[in-house]
Amino acid sequence: MDRIVECVPNFSEGRDRATIQALIDAVVSVPGVRLLHHTFDYDHHRSVMTVVGDPEDVTEAMFRAIRVATDLIDLRKHAGAHPRVGATDVVPFVPIRGVSMHDCVQAARRLGHRIGTELEIPVFLYERAASHSDHAPLESVRRGGLEGLSFRMASDPDWTPDFGPTRPHKSAGAIVIGVRPPLIAFNVNLASTDLALAQSIARTVRQSNGGLRHVKAIGVELPSRRLVQVAMNLTDYEMTPIYAAFKAVQAEAARQDVLVAGTEIVGLVPAPALSEAMRHALALERFDPGQILEVRMEAELARAAQSPQPAKNAAGTK
Amino acid sequence: MDRIVECVPNFSEGRDRATIQALIDAVVSVPGVRLLHHTFDYDHHRSVMTVVGDPEDVTEAMFRAIRVATDLIDLRKHAGAHPRVGATDVVPFVPIRGVSMHDCVQAARRLGHRIGTELEIPVFLYERAASHSDHAPLESVRRGGLEGLSFRMASDPDWTPDFGPTRPHKSAGAIVIGVRPPLIAFNVNLASTDLALAQSIARTVRQSNGGLRHVKAIGVELPSRRLVQVAMNLTDYEMTPIYAAFKAVQAEAARQDVLVAGTEIVGLVPAPALSEAMRHALALERFDPGQILEVRMEAELARAAQSPQPAKNAAGTK
Repeated sequence: MDRIVECVPNFSEGRDRATIQALIDAVVSVPGVRLLHHTFDYDHHRSVMTVVGDPEDVTEAMFRAIRVATDLIDLRKHAGAHPRVGATDVVPFVPIRGVSMHDCVQAARRLGHRIGTELEIPVFLYERAASHSDHAPLESVRRGGLEGLSFRMASDPDWTPDFGPTRPHKSAGAIVIGVRPPLIAFNVNLASTDLALAQSIARTVRQSNGGLRHVKAIGVELPSRRLVQVAMNLTDYEMTPIYAAFKAVQAEAARQDVLVAGTEIVGLVPAPALSEAMRHALALERFDPGQILEVRMEAELARAAQSPQPAKNAAGTK
Repeated sequence: MDRIVECVPNFSEGRDRATIQALIDAVVSVPGVRLLHHTFDYDHHRSVMTVVGDPEDVTEAMFRAIRVATDLIDLRKHAGAHPRVGATDVVPFVPIRGVSMHDCVQAARRLGHRIGTELEIPVFLYERAASHSDHAPLESVRRGGLEGLSFRMASDPDWTPDFGPTRPHKSAGAIVIGVRPPLIAFNVNLASTDLALAQSIARTVRQSNGGLRHVKAIGVELPSRRLVQVAMNLTDYEMTPIYAAFKAVQAEAARQDVLVAGTEIVGLVPAPALSEAMRHALALERFDPGQILEVRMEAELARAAQSPQPAKNAAGTK
């Protein structure tokens, strides 16, 4: 059986290479867990990993990395551009294949329980894992950073953590753990230097202002390229595909007489998220991501890796 | 090191399930070799597998399957719609990753040598593996089926096989082994029932009539759908991408006042072959197939599968 979750932990350390390496080592110390990608940013003082594997293995790998982050990162000495509430800041689980949202929620709860009891760090569950509707949007939990969250925890019974102590850990703060569909970072560059224009298009297309569902968007400047950009997060590509977001920005840009200079997908994207754009580009009547040779190979390799191995049996029974 | 070749052997058996299963069992008896796809067709009396793995492993798997085909298939009792020269008819090697065309030619030659000496079947090398320019096009080797090939072998010194005896094997015939880039089967359906129209468009776009390089095309009828189709094989998607073939057919159809009803990709397609269509559909400034989550996972799994495993070491040293 081929069960794959993705986990994208964010740690509040983007500068010290030894700490970043220790976090990576902790993740890959669990057999069967694969680190697909990692980035760290000096200004944000933050690192982000993309990890995949069986839900149980990934949960164990996350626990080990969070224990390392708790030992090595002291939030009292941390200042970065990015809002954060913990040494380990946010840990989203994402169903990829053979697992449901519910399976991921179970994994998130198991991890939260262990962190609360063994590491004594308060854990808030967010988005699909949230047990309290106020906690569902990540922005709500992180509002005001650790200082804002600490204040709400001390003053508002609605802000009792899901697991762990009712006060922040003194050096590690709190941790936000959740479940969400795959998130796609898709940016559209405009042939203009007018930031207000990009911001206006972002407002038109994003859900919070009545635009497309599951689209978050902001306008940003790219001074080095003399362009402005509509930077989007697509939080449910099945409901709002990449292609739909592209067409919406393109249409609004045309209405405002500005050309699309180009677009970019940042980081990884699941193959099914590409299918609609593929179908459009080639007028395909149907296109199954399983027709991509590497996707099929990956499924076969994953199946083989998870089925009993003669060599392992030999080792196990000797 | 991650070295992957694809092999797509065609066997002259599309009816007897036990024989087909024996061929599959022979292929997957080699550890590390994956069967990604297989089809068999009653009318054509033929089965086709898609197999991937390390070149050495795939070569061994092919030898085992060809030995089974030699034992179980008697070409003297075989009649099917498809032209064929052997019980194992044609065995193309395709470089996928970390291997060159030259590596594949070496694999094809090793396999041919073993078949010639151990199974005593004549082997002709074709396309990129061909040692004689007359043998390069597969159609040339298969012209007239086994009967035509036997005649040329007996009468023309240019048709001495690359390996094995100078006369066909009495029940297994001959085998054609070669190397080619990935082949993509891409069909464009037209909103018309006029076969002559589809044939005319096929002639315009295919290389043999002065059209696009690396495109083979025929016009066919799809009576059950009341459509005609331009059925294409794209034999080098780096030189002539899927998107270029689509645009060429679309333009010629427009010129002849017929609409494209839809298209289809038959079977598997390597991720890089999709990139140009992706870039077009979403105006992407760049798109690396390694950004597809499953492609990255596959590369990681393949690396892990080929590196020493602690469990295997434990078994090996006990």
